[in-house]
Amino acid sequence: MPDPTLPAARTVAELRAAVSAWRGAGRRVALVPTMGALHEGHLSLVRLGKSKADHVVASIFVNPTQFAPGEDFEAYPRDEARDAALLAGAGCDLLYAPTVAEMYPPGFSTSVDVGGVSTPLDGLARPTHFAGVATVVTKLLLQCRPDVAIFGEKDFQQLLVIRRLARDLDLPVEILGGPTKRDVDGLALSSRNAYLSVEERRVAGTLNLALKTAAEALAAGAAVDSVEAEAKARIASAGFGSIDYVEVRAEDDLGRLGPGPLESPARIFVAARIGRTRLIDNWPVRTPVT
Amino acid sequence: MPDPTLPAARTVAELRAAVSAWRGAGRRVALVPTMGALHEGHLSLVRLGKSKADHVVASIFVNPTQFAPGEDFEAYPRDEARDAALLAGAGCDLLYAPTVAEMYPPGFSTSVDVGGVSTPLDGLARPTHFAGVATVVTKLLLQCRPDVAIFGEKDFQQLLVIRRLARDLDLPVEILGGPTKRDVDGLALSSRNAYLSVEERRVAGTLNLALKTAAEALAAGAAVDSVEAEAKARIASAGFGSIDYVEVRAEDDLGRLGPGPLESPARIFVAARIGRTRLIDNWPVRTPVT
Repeated sequence: MPDPTLPAARTVAELRAAVSAWRGAGRRVALVPTMGALHEGHLSLVRLGKSKADHVVASIFVNPTQFAPGEDFEAYPRDEARDAALLAGAGCDLLYAPTVAEMYPPGFSTSVDVGGVSTPLDGLARPTHFAGVATVVTKLLLQCRPDVAIFGEKDFQQLLVIRRLARDLDLPVEILGGPTKRDVDGLALSSRNAYLSVEERRVAGTLNLALKTAAEALAAGAAVDSVEAEAKARIASAGFGSIDYVEVRAEDDLGRLGPGPLESPARIFVAARIGRTRLIDNWPVRTPVT
Repeated sequence: MPDPTLPAARTVAELRAAVSAWRGAGRRVALVPTMGALHEGHLSLVRLGKSKADHVVASIFVNPTQFAPGEDFEAYPRDEARDAALLAGAGCDLLYAPTVAEMYPPGFSTSVDVGGVSTPLDGLARPTHFAGVATVVTKLLLQCRPDVAIFGEKDFQQLLVIRRLARDLDLPVEILGGPTKRDVDGLALSSRNAYLSVEERRVAGTLNLALKTAAEALAAGAAVDSVEAEAKARIASAGFGSIDYVEVRAEDDLGRLGPGPLESPARIFVAARIGRTRLIDNWPVRTPVT
């Protein structure tokens, strides 16, 4: 039975004391950064961390700087007791749950901008988002100093941004992606799925099917621009409201592809709204055999 | 006799191997980042490092991203053999001299912006400068992972920027400032002094006197705005060309002061050109006894 009372660090000093003790004993440490509201996707990352390191730290921090005014920072679900029990059950050794004041004390003014892979897709749709992510992840990695840090492929662009960040700033950590976990109808697990009404939830379940269909068409040799247009039409007619993007991009650097048949590994990315809920997803595309 | 053949690391891997060996043996490590063209100011920082740590790494890297187009990146003096001999004589244990390709490999795209203290003074005069500095210093600190890193007070704003950077990103390092070294006439030692003709060098020697006079007037209770205006006039009439700024600022956060008599610790900052050479200097101001 996992210990239901997961130890928690609230400050950088407490976190470093715990991690230093492990490191001093020659143990490897994994960090799984989260914003809480945990689901099976997060827990699978904790288990992946446990398979790569002796100890897993999961952070829960709803980072205000990656939300724009009018986004759901205030509404974002928070239930630490529930999250802590789930983390303990998945084999997590330490919860790191700092306050906003611990992360951003008075006078804080620094920002990390990854450029490049952070600029298309969600970088266009949410212009301040990835600088907020890159800055807080830099801090979390330097506060914890793990051997490995794990991020979900559901936020695939974020994973690429953080890989680039770690490489560019020489952060001494290995960045690993964990596969997207999906519900029975294929909907990518997301804390934001909790916002959906029953009818919205039904519509949401069609998003992954549109991506899968598009990926199959691309693998069969269809042209990028027509596949994007068809996927967009399918998503709109399924009942989504505004669609921020449906785009096929290179899997390594998110470079623009097409308009013809694919010639290198790619992924199709979507961001679309149902009511006030914004969902994102992505799907790998196999290059057609030529 | 110091070893005249100072060991040199050219890559991050070589640097980390050397530093890891020291850290594994329980030794403290100091880093002194430089752009080479070393003078007694740099060497005093190496000696300060040696008094704070068991081993001192000095980096020499003329960082292209902190120069704007039209500035002196190409002309900046480079003589590694001379620098290495000076470093060895000052007690340095390892030279870290990476190439531009080692620091900025293809695909590099990340930038660190400290905001706040990096925005006035040289932040206005050289708009891309401090982002270049903050990014390269973040990289150097994470490549070397020293216990302490040492920067000269001659570049006082840079020292404040790096202190803020280290605090904001939770870089696990102590940032120390070393006092400005001056020539017999008080000119702050700078690699750029080598650009000056004999006549320009004579004019340059008046810059620190203008600051000292201004600081004394402020300590005697003179108003900030009149002291700034007088110092500016004195510097212009001494033979300087364009003056980027002469400003009294709070010593902790570079906040604007005045216009009346000072009420908290301050410093007077100057940037001015003689011919094509841009010089900066700064001088502490004692608060008047009230």
